[in-house]
Amino acid sequence: MRKGEQTRAAILDAALDLASRDGLEGLTIGLLAERMQMSKSGVFAHFGSREDLQVEVVREYHRRFEDEVFFPSLREARGLPRLRAMMNRWMEKRIQEVTTGCIYISGAVEYDDRAASAVREQLVHSVSMWRDALLRAIRQSKDEGHLKADTDPQLMLFELYSFTLGLHHDARFLHLPEAVQLTRDALEKTFTSYQTPGSNGGAPSSAGNSESISPNASVNPDPSPAATLTSHHTDSR
Amino acid sequence: MRKGEQTRAAILDAALDLASRDGLEGLTIGLLAERMQMSKSGVFAHFGSREDLQVEVVREYHRRFEDEVFFPSLREARGLPRLRAMMNRWMEKRIQEVTTGCIYISGAVEYDDRAASAVREQLVHSVSMWRDALLRAIRQSKDEGHLKADTDPQLMLFELYSFTLGLHHDARFLHLPEAVQLTRDALEKTFTSYQTPGSNGGAPSSAGNSESISPNASVNPDPSPAATLTSHHTDSR
Repeated sequence: MRKGEQTRAAILDAALDLASRDGLEGLTIGLLAERMQMSKSGVFAHFGSREDLQVEVVREYHRRFEDEVFFPSLREARGLPRLRAMMNRWMEKRIQEVTTGCIYISGAVEYDDRAASAVREQLVHSVSMWRDALLRAIRQSKDEGHLKADTDPQLMLFELYSFTLGLHHDARFLHLPEAVQLTRDALEKTFTSYQTPGSNGGAPSSAGNSESISPNASVNPDPSPAATLTSHHTDSR
Repeated sequence: MRKGEQTRAAILDAALDLASRDGLEGLTIGLLAERMQMSKSGVFAHFGSREDLQVEVVREYHRRFEDEVFFPSLREARGLPRLRAMMNRWMEKRIQEVTTGCIYISGAVEYDDRAASAVREQLVHSVSMWRDALLRAIRQSKDEGHLKADTDPQLMLFELYSFTLGLHHDARFLHLPEAVQLTRDALEKTFTSYQTPGSNGGAPSSAGNSESISPNASVNPDPSPAATLTSHHTDSR
Protein backbone atom coordinates (compact mmCIF):
# COMPACT_ATOMS: atom_id res chain seq x y z
CA MET A 1 0.00 0.00 0.00
CA ARG A 2 1.40 3.37 -0.95
CA LYS A 3 1.73 6.24 1.47
CA GLY A 4 -1.32 8.08 0.09
CA GLU A 5 -3.43 4.95 0.32
CA GLN A 6 -2.26 4.29 3.85
CA THR A 7 -3.24 7.80 4.92
CA ARG A 8 -6.62 7.45 3.23
CA ALA A 9 -7.22 4.13 4.99
CA ALA A 10 -6.23 5.64 8.34
CA ILE A 11 -8.60 8.59 7.84
CA LEU A 12 -11.42 6.21 6.90
CA ASP A 13 -10.73 4.10 9.98
CA ALA A 14 -10.95 7.15 12.25
CA ALA A 15 -14.05 8.38 10.41
CA LEU A 16 -15.82 5.05 10.91
CA ASP A 17 -14.96 5.21 14.58
CA LEU A 18 -16.35 8.73 14.95
CA ALA A 19 -19.47 7.95 12.91
CA SER A 20 -20.20 4.85 15.02
CA ARG A 21 -19.98 6.97 18.16
CA ASP A 22 -21.65 10.22 17.04
CA GLY A 23 -23.67 9.14 14.00
CA LEU A 24 -22.94 9.91 10.36
CA GLU A 25 -24.36 13.41 10.78
CA GLY A 26 -22.01 14.00 13.70
CA LEU A 27 -19.04 13.34 11.41
CA THR A 28 -17.34 16.56 10.36
CA ILE A 29 -14.11 17.21 8.51
CA GLY A 30 -13.02 19.45 11.40
CA LEU A 31 -13.47 16.73 14.04
CA LEU A 32 -11.74 14.21 11.82
CA ALA A 33 -8.79 16.53 11.12
CA GLU A 34 -8.40 17.03 14.87
CA ARG A 35 -8.46 13.29 15.53
CA MET A 36 -5.91 12.69 12.76
CA GLN A 37 -3.77 15.69 13.75
CA MET A 38 -4.01 16.87 10.16
CA SER A 39 -5.20 20.08 8.57
CA LYS A 40 -8.74 20.19 7.18
CA SER A 41 -7.34 20.65 3.69
CA GLY A 42 -5.25 17.52 4.26
CA VAL A 43 -8.46 15.55 4.86
CA PHE A 44 -10.17 17.20 1.89
CA ALA A 45 -7.28 16.08 -0.31
CA HIS A 46 -8.41 12.48 0.23
CA PHE A 47 -12.19 12.99 0.25
CA GLY A 48 -13.63 15.65 -2.00
CA SER A 49 -16.51 16.61 0.31
CA ARG A 50 -18.11 15.74 3.62
CA GLU A 51 -20.80 13.80 1.74
CA ASP A 52 -18.19 11.77 -0.18
CA LEU A 53 -16.57 10.95 3.13
CA GLN A 54 -19.90 9.86 4.67
CA VAL A 55 -20.66 7.64 1.68
CA GLU A 56 -17.19 6.07 1.91
CA VAL A 57 -17.72 5.41 5.62
CA VAL A 58 -20.93 3.49 4.85
CA ARG A 59 -19.11 1.52 2.15
CA GLU A 60 -16.23 0.73 4.51
CA TYR A 61 -18.66 -0.44 7.21
CA HIS A 62 -20.32 -2.65 4.63
CA ARG A 63 -16.99 -4.19 3.51
CA ARG A 64 -16.12 -5.03 7.12
CA PHE A 65 -19.61 -6.39 7.71
CA GLU A 66 -19.20 -8.73 4.73
CA ASP A 67 -15.78 -9.86 5.97
CA GLU A 68 -16.87 -10.46 9.55
CA VAL A 69 -20.44 -11.72 9.12
CA PHE A 70 -21.28 -12.76 5.59
CA PHE A 71 -18.27 -14.43 3.93
CA PRO A 72 -17.32 -16.67 6.88
CA SER A 73 -20.94 -17.89 7.04
CA LEU A 74 -20.75 -19.11 3.43
CA ARG A 75 -18.43 -21.87 4.66
CA GLU A 76 -21.42 -23.49 6.33
CA ALA A 77 -23.61 -25.91 4.42
CA ARG A 78 -26.31 -24.32 2.28
CA GLY A 79 -29.64 -23.97 4.06
CA LEU A 80 -30.30 -23.65 7.77
CA PRO A 81 -26.66 -24.13 8.90
CA ARG A 82 -25.66 -21.12 6.82
CA LEU A 83 -28.65 -19.03 7.90
CA ARG A 84 -27.93 -19.79 11.55
CA ALA A 85 -24.25 -18.91 11.06
CA MET A 86 -25.23 -15.56 9.53
CA MET A 87 -27.51 -14.77 12.47
CA ASN A 88 -24.97 -15.90 15.06
CA ARG A 89 -22.18 -13.82 13.58
CA TRP A 90 -24.50 -10.85 13.21
CA MET A 91 -25.46 -11.16 16.87
CA GLU A 92 -21.80 -11.31 17.88
CA LYS A 93 -21.20 -8.11 15.92
CA ARG A 94 -24.22 -6.47 17.54
CA ILE A 95 -22.93 -7.43 20.98
CA GLN A 96 -19.58 -5.77 20.19
CA GLU A 97 -21.47 -2.76 18.90
CA VAL A 98 -23.27 -2.30 22.20
CA THR A 99 -20.21 -0.29 23.20
CA THR A 100 -19.19 1.18 19.83
CA GLY A 101 -22.51 1.87 18.11
CA CYS A 102 -23.73 0.70 14.71
CA ILE A 103 -24.04 3.05 11.77
CA TYR A 104 -26.80 0.95 10.15
CA ILE A 105 -29.03 1.45 13.19
CA SER A 106 -28.12 5.05 13.97
CA GLY A 107 -28.17 5.84 10.25
CA ALA A 108 -31.63 4.32 9.86
CA VAL A 109 -32.90 6.86 12.40
CA GLU A 110 -30.75 9.78 11.23
CA TYR A 111 -31.81 9.40 7.61
CA ASP A 112 -35.35 8.10 8.02
CA ASP A 113 -36.99 11.41 7.29
CA ARG A 114 -34.44 13.02 5.04
CA ALA A 115 -34.82 13.81 1.40
CA ALA A 116 -32.94 11.58 -1.02
CA SER A 117 -29.20 12.00 -0.63
CA ALA A 118 -26.13 10.04 -1.61
CA VAL A 119 -25.60 9.00 2.03
CA ARG A 120 -29.17 7.82 2.54
CA GLU A 121 -29.04 5.96 -0.78
CA GLN A 122 -25.82 4.15 0.16
CA LEU A 123 -27.21 3.23 3.59
CA VAL A 124 -30.44 1.83 2.18
CA HIS A 125 -28.45 -0.01 -0.48
CA SER A 126 -26.10 -1.62 2.05
CA VAL A 127 -28.87 -2.59 4.48
CA SER A 128 -30.96 -3.98 1.61
CA MET A 129 -28.09 -6.11 0.33
CA TRP A 130 -27.72 -7.72 3.75
CA ARG A 131 -31.47 -8.28 3.99
CA ASP A 132 -31.47 -9.84 0.50
CA ALA A 133 -28.66 -12.18 1.58
CA LEU A 134 -30.71 -13.27 4.60
CA LEU A 135 -33.76 -13.74 2.40
CA ARG A 136 -31.79 -15.93 0.01
CA ALA A 137 -30.52 -18.02 2.90
CA ILE A 138 -34.10 -18.44 4.17
CA ARG A 139 -35.31 -19.52 0.70
CA GLN A 140 -32.41 -21.94 0.35
CA SER A 141 -33.31 -23.42 3.76
CA LYS A 142 -36.81 -24.05 2.41
CA ASP A 143 -35.39 -25.58 -0.78
CA GLU A 144 -33.18 -27.87 1.30
CA GLY A 145 -36.21 -28.99 3.30
CA HIS A 146 -34.82 -27.53 6.54
CA LEU A 147 -37.69 -25.08 6.86
CA LYS A 148 -41.38 -25.91 6.40
CA ALA A 149 -42.75 -25.49 2.90
CA ASP A 150 -45.28 -22.86 4.04
CA THR A 151 -42.59 -20.64 5.59
CA ASP A 152 -43.15 -17.01 4.61
CA PRO A 153 -39.58 -15.78 3.96
CA GLN A 154 -40.50 -12.10 4.35
CA LEU A 155 -42.19 -12.72 7.69
CA MET A 156 -39.26 -14.76 8.96
CA LEU A 157 -36.87 -12.00 7.84
CA PHE A 158 -39.02 -9.42 9.63
CA GLU A 159 -38.84 -11.43 12.85
CA LEU A 160 -35.08 -12.02 12.70
CA TYR A 161 -34.32 -8.43 11.78
CA SER A 162 -36.59 -7.01 14.48
CA PHE A 163 -34.87 -9.05 17.19
CA THR A 164 -31.48 -7.62 16.33
CA LEU A 165 -33.00 -4.12 16.52
CA GLY A 166 -34.46 -5.11 19.89
CA LEU A 167 -31.07 -6.34 21.10
CA HIS A 168 -29.44 -3.05 20.24
CA HIS A 169 -32.25 -1.06 21.87
CA ASP A 170 -32.40 -3.06 25.08
CA ALA A 171 -28.64 -3.42 25.56
CA ARG A 172 -27.41 -0.05 24.38
CA PHE A 173 -30.23 2.29 25.39
CA LEU A 174 -31.83 0.52 28.38
CA HIS A 175 -28.66 -1.29 29.54
CA LEU A 176 -30.65 -4.45 30.30
CA PRO A 177 -28.26 -7.24 31.28
CA GLU A 178 -30.65 -9.94 30.03
CA ALA A 179 -30.87 -8.48 26.48
CA VAL A 180 -28.44 -10.94 24.88
CA GLN A 181 -30.08 -14.02 26.39
CA LEU A 182 -33.58 -12.79 25.44
CA THR A 183 -32.40 -12.24 21.86
CA ARG A 184 -30.94 -15.74 21.68
CA ASP A 185 -34.19 -17.18 23.08
CA ALA A 186 -36.34 -15.19 20.64
CA LEU A 187 -34.19 -16.21 17.64
CA GLU A 188 -34.26 -19.86 18.69
CA LYS A 189 -38.04 -19.73 19.15
CA THR A 190 -38.38 -18.33 15.61
CA PHE A 191 -36.07 -20.94 14.07
CA THR A 192 -37.99 -23.71 15.86
CA SER A 193 -41.34 -22.37 14.68
CA TYR A 194 -40.31 -22.63 11.02
CA GLN A 195 -38.14 -25.73 11.18
CA THR A 196 -39.36 -28.91 9.50
CA PRO A 197 -40.23 -31.45 12.20
CA GLY A 198 -37.40 -33.95 12.40
CA SER A 199 -35.00 -31.76 10.46
CA ASN A 200 -31.99 -30.77 12.48
CA GLY A 201 -30.40 -28.46 9.94
CA GLY A 202 -27.86 -26.56 11.94
CA ALA A 203 -29.48 -26.67 15.37
CA PRO A 204 -27.06 -25.64 18.12
CA SER A 205 -26.41 -29.30 19.08
CA SER A 206 -25.16 -30.07 15.57
CA ALA A 207 -22.45 -27.39 15.64
CA GLY A 208 -19.42 -28.58 13.76
CA ASN A 209 -21.58 -29.78 10.88
CA SER A 210 -18.70 -29.34 8.48
CA GLU A 211 -18.48 -32.50 6.41
CA SER A 212 -18.46 -30.47 3.21
CA ILE A 213 -15.74 -28.06 4.28
CA SER A 214 -12.09 -28.79 3.67
CA PRO A 215 -9.52 -27.03 5.86
CA ASN A 216 -8.45 -25.13 2.77
CA ALA A 217 -11.93 -24.02 1.80
CA SER A 218 -11.83 -20.61 0.20
CA VAL A 219 -13.61 -17.72 1.88
CA ASN A 220 -16.39 -17.95 -0.65
CA PRO A 221 -16.81 -21.55 -1.76
CA ASP A 222 -20.27 -21.05 -3.23
CA PRO A 223 -19.76 -20.53 -6.96
CA SER A 224 -23.28 -19.27 -7.66
CA PRO A 225 -23.56 -15.62 -8.64
CA ALA A 226 -26.01 -15.18 -5.76
CA ALA A 227 -23.29 -15.90 -3.23
CA THR A 228 -22.06 -12.37 -2.71
CA LEU A 229 -23.80 -9.65 -0.80
CA THR A 230 -23.21 -7.33 -3.69
CA SER A 231 -25.19 -9.39 -6.20
CA HIS A 232 -28.56 -8.13 -7.30
CA HIS A 233 -31.61 -10.00 -6.27
CA THR A 234 -35.26 -9.61 -7.11
CA ASP A 235 -36.97 -9.09 -3.82
CA SER A 236 -40.39 -10.47 -4.69
CA ARG A 237 -42.20 -11.99 -1.81
CA MET B 1 -56.20 28.34 30.85
CA ARG B 2 -54.47 31.62 31.38
CA LYS B 3 -52.57 33.44 28.65
CA GLY B 4 -49.17 32.40 30.01
CA GLU B 5 -50.21 28.75 30.21
CA GLN B 6 -51.64 28.90 26.68
CA THR B 7 -48.37 30.25 25.34
CA ARG B 8 -46.39 27.60 27.21
CA ALA B 9 -48.65 24.87 25.81
CA ALA B 10 -48.29 26.26 22.29
CA ILE B 11 -44.49 26.34 22.61
CA LEU B 12 -44.47 22.77 23.90
CA ASP B 13 -46.67 21.67 21.01
CA ALA B 14 -44.30 23.21 18.47
CA ALA B 15 -41.29 21.79 20.32
CA LEU B 16 -42.74 18.27 20.23
CA ASP B 17 -43.33 18.68 16.53
CA LEU B 18 -39.76 19.80 15.88
CA ALA B 19 -38.27 17.10 18.12
CA SER B 20 -40.28 14.38 16.37
CA ARG B 21 -38.93 15.59 13.03
CA ASP B 22 -35.32 16.48 13.91
CA GLY B 23 -34.71 14.53 17.11
CA LEU B 24 -34.42 15.92 20.63
CA GLU B 25 -30.85 17.00 19.94
CA GLY B 26 -32.03 18.91 16.88
CA LEU B 27 -34.33 20.99 19.07
CA THR B 28 -32.90 24.44 19.71
CA ILE B 29 -34.37 27.50 21.35
CA GLY B 30 -33.50 29.48 18.21
CA LEU B 31 -35.40 27.17 15.87
CA LEU B 32 -38.35 27.12 18.24
CA ALA B 33 -38.42 30.91 18.58
CA GLU B 34 -38.45 31.16 14.78
CA ARG B 35 -41.32 28.67 14.49
CA MET B 36 -43.29 30.54 17.20
CA GLN B 37 -42.40 33.97 15.81
CA MET B 38 -41.17 34.89 19.28
CA SER B 39 -37.86 36.16 20.61
CA LYS B 40 -35.46 33.64 22.12
CA SER B 41 -35.84 35.35 25.50
CA GLY B 42 -39.60 34.92 25.14
CA VAL B 43 -39.09 31.16 24.88
CA PHE B 44 -36.60 31.16 27.75
CA ALA B 45 -39.19 32.91 29.92
CA HIS B 46 -41.27 29.70 29.79
CA PHE B 47 -38.48 27.11 29.89
CA GLY B 48 -35.40 27.90 31.94
CA SER B 49 -32.94 26.08 29.69
CA ARG B 50 -32.72 23.97 26.56
CA GLU B 51 -32.41 20.87 28.72
CA ASP B 52 -35.54 21.77 30.71
CA LEU B 53 -37.36 22.18 27.43
CA GLN B 54 -36.14 18.78 26.16
CA VAL B 55 -37.23 17.06 29.38
CA GLU B 56 -40.65 18.73 29.15
CA VAL B 57 -41.00 17.54 25.54
CA VAL B 58 -40.38 13.94 26.64
CA ARG B 59 -42.95 14.35 29.44
CA GLU B 60 -45.49 15.84 27.04
CA TYR B 61 -44.97 12.98 24.57
CA HIS B 62 -45.48 10.55 27.43
CA ARG B 63 -48.74 12.23 28.54
CA ARG B 64 -50.09 12.02 24.99
CA PHE B 65 -48.94 8.43 24.69
CA GLU B 66 -50.87 7.55 27.88
CA ASP B 67 -53.97 9.36 26.59
CA GLU B 68 -53.90 7.78 23.13
CA VAL B 69 -52.56 4.30 23.84
CA PHE B 70 -52.67 3.33 27.50
CA PHE B 71 -55.80 4.74 29.18
CA PRO B 72 -58.28 3.77 26.42
CA SER B 73 -56.91 0.20 26.54
CA LEU B 74 -57.81 -0.08 30.24
CA ARG B 75 -61.45 -0.16 29.17
CA GLU B 76 -60.87 -3.65 27.81
CA ALA B 77 -61.24 -6.68 30.05
CA ARG B 78 -58.19 -7.52 32.14
CA GLY B 79 -55.88 -10.04 30.49
CA LEU B 80 -55.38 -10.71 26.81
CA PRO B 81 -58.11 -8.33 25.55
CA ARG B 82 -56.35 -5.46 27.29
CA LEU B 83 -52.88 -6.54 26.14
CA ARG B 84 -54.10 -6.81 22.56
CA ALA B 85 -55.75 -3.39 22.80
CA MET B 86 -52.48 -1.86 24.03
CA MET B 87 -50.55 -3.40 21.15
CA ASN B 88 -53.17 -2.42 18.57
CA ARG B 89 -53.28 1.20 19.71
CA TRP B 90 -49.51 1.32 19.88
CA MET B 91 -49.31 0.02 16.32
CA GLU B 92 -51.79 2.65 15.16
CA LYS B 93 -49.62 5.33 16.76
CA ARG B 94 -46.51 3.88 15.14
CA ILE B 95 -48.23 3.92 11.75
CA GLN B 96 -49.06 7.63 12.22
CA GLU B 97 -45.47 8.21 13.29
CA VAL B 98 -44.13 6.79 10.05
CA THR B 99 -44.59 10.31 8.73
CA THR B 100 -43.95 12.36 11.87
CA GLY B 101 -41.24 10.40 13.68
CA CYS B 102 -41.19 9.07 17.23
CA ILE B 103 -39.05 10.60 19.95
CA TYR B 104 -38.83 7.32 21.87
CA ILE B 105 -37.15 5.61 18.91
CA SER B 106 -35.01 8.50 17.73
CA GLY B 107 -34.21 9.33 21.37
CA ALA B 108 -33.14 5.75 22.06
CA VAL B 109 -30.51 6.14 19.35
CA GLU B 110 -29.58 9.75 20.13
CA TYR B 111 -29.02 9.06 23.82
CA ASP B 112 -27.77 5.48 23.69
CA ASP B 113 -24.15 6.38 24.16
CA ARG B 114 -24.44 9.58 26.11
CA ALA B 115 -23.43 10.14 29.69
CA ALA B 116 -26.22 10.41 32.22
CA SER B 117 -28.32 13.52 31.62
CA ALA B 118 -31.74 14.72 32.65
CA VAL B 119 -33.04 14.12 29.11
CA ARG B 120 -31.69 10.58 28.89
CA GLU B 121 -33.05 9.81 32.36
CA GLN B 122 -36.53 11.05 31.46
CA LEU B 123 -36.50 9.08 28.19
CA VAL B 124 -35.44 5.83 29.89
CA HIS B 125 -38.02 6.45 32.62
CA SER B 126 -40.87 7.00 30.15
CA VAL B 127 -39.96 4.03 27.95
CA SER B 128 -39.55 1.82 31.03
CA MET B 129 -42.98 2.80 32.38
CA TRP B 130 -44.60 1.74 29.12
CA ARG B 131 -42.64 -1.53 29.12
CA ASP B 132 -43.69 -2.18 32.74
CA ALA B 133 -47.32 -1.60 31.77
CA LEU B 134 -46.98 -4.15 28.95
CA LEU B 135 -45.30 -6.59 31.32
CA ARG B 136 -48.14 -6.23 33.83
CA ALA B 137 -50.69 -6.85 31.10
CA ILE B 138 -48.78 -9.99 30.04
CA ARG B 139 -48.69 -11.27 33.64
CA GLN B 140 -52.39 -10.54 34.10
CA SER B 141 -53.08 -12.49 30.89
CA LYS B 142 -51.27 -15.44 32.44
CA ASP B 143 -53.23 -15.02 35.70
CA GLU B 144 -56.49 -14.97 33.76
CA GLY B 145 -55.50 -18.19 32.02
CA HIS B 146 -55.44 -16.52 28.59
CA LEU B 147 -51.74 -17.22 28.16
CA LYS B 148 -50.00 -20.51 28.87
CA ALA B 149 -48.63 -20.99 32.37
CA ASP B 150 -45.06 -21.37 31.10
CA THR B 151 -45.14 -18.04 29.22
CA ASP B 152 -41.94 -16.09 29.87
CA PRO B 153 -43.24 -12.49 30.24
CA GLN B 154 -39.85 -10.91 29.54
CA LEU B 155 -39.39 -12.92 26.36
CA MET B 156 -42.89 -12.08 25.15
CA LEU B 157 -42.25 -8.39 25.90
CA PHE B 158 -38.96 -8.59 23.96
CA GLU B 159 -40.77 -10.04 20.94
CA LEU B 160 -43.63 -7.50 20.97
CA TYR B 161 -41.32 -4.56 21.52
CA SER B 162 -38.88 -5.67 18.80
CA PHE B 163 -41.68 -5.90 16.23
CA THR B 164 -42.72 -2.30 16.78
CA LEU B 165 -39.06 -1.28 16.33
CA GLY B 166 -39.04 -3.35 13.14
CA LEU B 167 -42.21 -1.64 11.90
CA HIS B 168 -40.68 1.79 12.36
CA HIS B 169 -37.42 0.72 10.68
CA ASP B 170 -39.01 -0.97 7.68
CA ALA B 171 -41.71 1.64 7.06
CA ARG B 172 -39.85 4.84 7.85
CA PHE B 173 -36.31 4.04 6.75
CA LEU B 174 -36.77 1.40 4.03
CA HIS B 175 -40.24 2.58 2.89
CA LEU B 176 -41.43 -1.03 2.55
CA PRO B 177 -45.13 -1.05 1.72
CA GLU B 178 -45.63 -4.46 3.35
CA ALA B 179 -44.22 -3.36 6.74
CA VAL B 180 -47.59 -2.89 8.46
CA GLN B 181 -48.96 -6.25 7.33
CA LEU B 182 -45.76 -8.06 8.32
CA THR B 183 -45.92 -6.48 11.78
CA ARG B 184 -49.54 -7.56 12.22
CA ASP B 185 -48.63 -11.09 11.12
CA ALA B 186 -45.62 -11.25 13.45
CA LEU B 187 -47.63 -9.96 16.43
CA GLU B 188 -50.44 -12.41 15.75
CA LYS B 189 -47.95 -15.28 15.45
CA THR B 190 -46.51 -14.32 18.84
CA PHE B 191 -49.92 -14.06 20.51
CA THR B 192 -50.89 -17.44 19.10
CA SER B 193 -47.66 -19.07 20.29
CA TYR B 194 -48.37 -18.08 23.91
CA GLN B 195 -52.13 -18.39 23.95
CA THR B 196 -53.74 -21.17 25.98
CA PRO B 197 -55.27 -23.70 23.56
CA GLY B 198 -59.00 -23.13 23.50
CA SER B 199 -58.74 -19.69 25.11
CA ASN B 200 -60.00 -16.96 22.86
CA GLY B 201 -59.13 -14.02 25.07
CA GLY B 202 -59.35 -11.06 22.80
CA ALA B 203 -58.57 -12.72 19.48
CA PRO B 204 -59.44 -10.48 16.55
CA SER B 205 -62.69 -12.36 15.88
CA SER B 206 -63.93 -11.57 19.40
CA ALA B 207 -63.65 -7.80 18.99
CA GLY B 208 -66.42 -6.09 20.91
CA ASN B 209 -65.79 -8.30 23.91
CA SER B 210 -67.11 -5.62 26.22
CA GLU B 211 -69.59 -7.26 28.55
CA SER B 212 -67.91 -5.68 31.55
CA ILE B 213 -67.88 -2.16 30.20
CA SER B 214 -70.78 0.22 30.76
CA PRO B 215 -71.24 3.09 28.30
CA ASN B 216 -70.29 5.43 31.12
CA ALA B 217 -67.13 3.59 32.04
CA SER B 218 -64.54 6.01 33.27
CA VAL B 219 -61.31 6.38 31.36
CA ASN B 220 -59.52 4.35 34.01
CA PRO B 221 -61.92 1.81 35.49
CA ASP B 222 -59.21 -0.34 37.05
CA PRO B 223 -58.97 0.74 40.68
CA SER B 224 -55.71 -1.07 41.39
CA PRO B 225 -52.70 1.14 42.01
CA ALA B 226 -50.91 -0.71 39.23
CA ALA B 227 -53.35 0.68 36.68
CA THR B 228 -51.46 3.80 35.74
CA LEU B 229 -48.36 3.98 33.65
CA THR B 230 -46.80 6.21 36.26
CA SER B 231 -47.00 3.63 39.04
CA HIS B 232 -43.82 1.94 40.14
CA HIS B 233 -43.34 -1.68 39.43
CA THR B 234 -40.66 -4.15 40.40
CA ASP B 235 -39.33 -5.45 37.16
CA SER B 236 -38.14 -8.85 38.32
CA ARG B 237 -38.32 -11.51 35.69
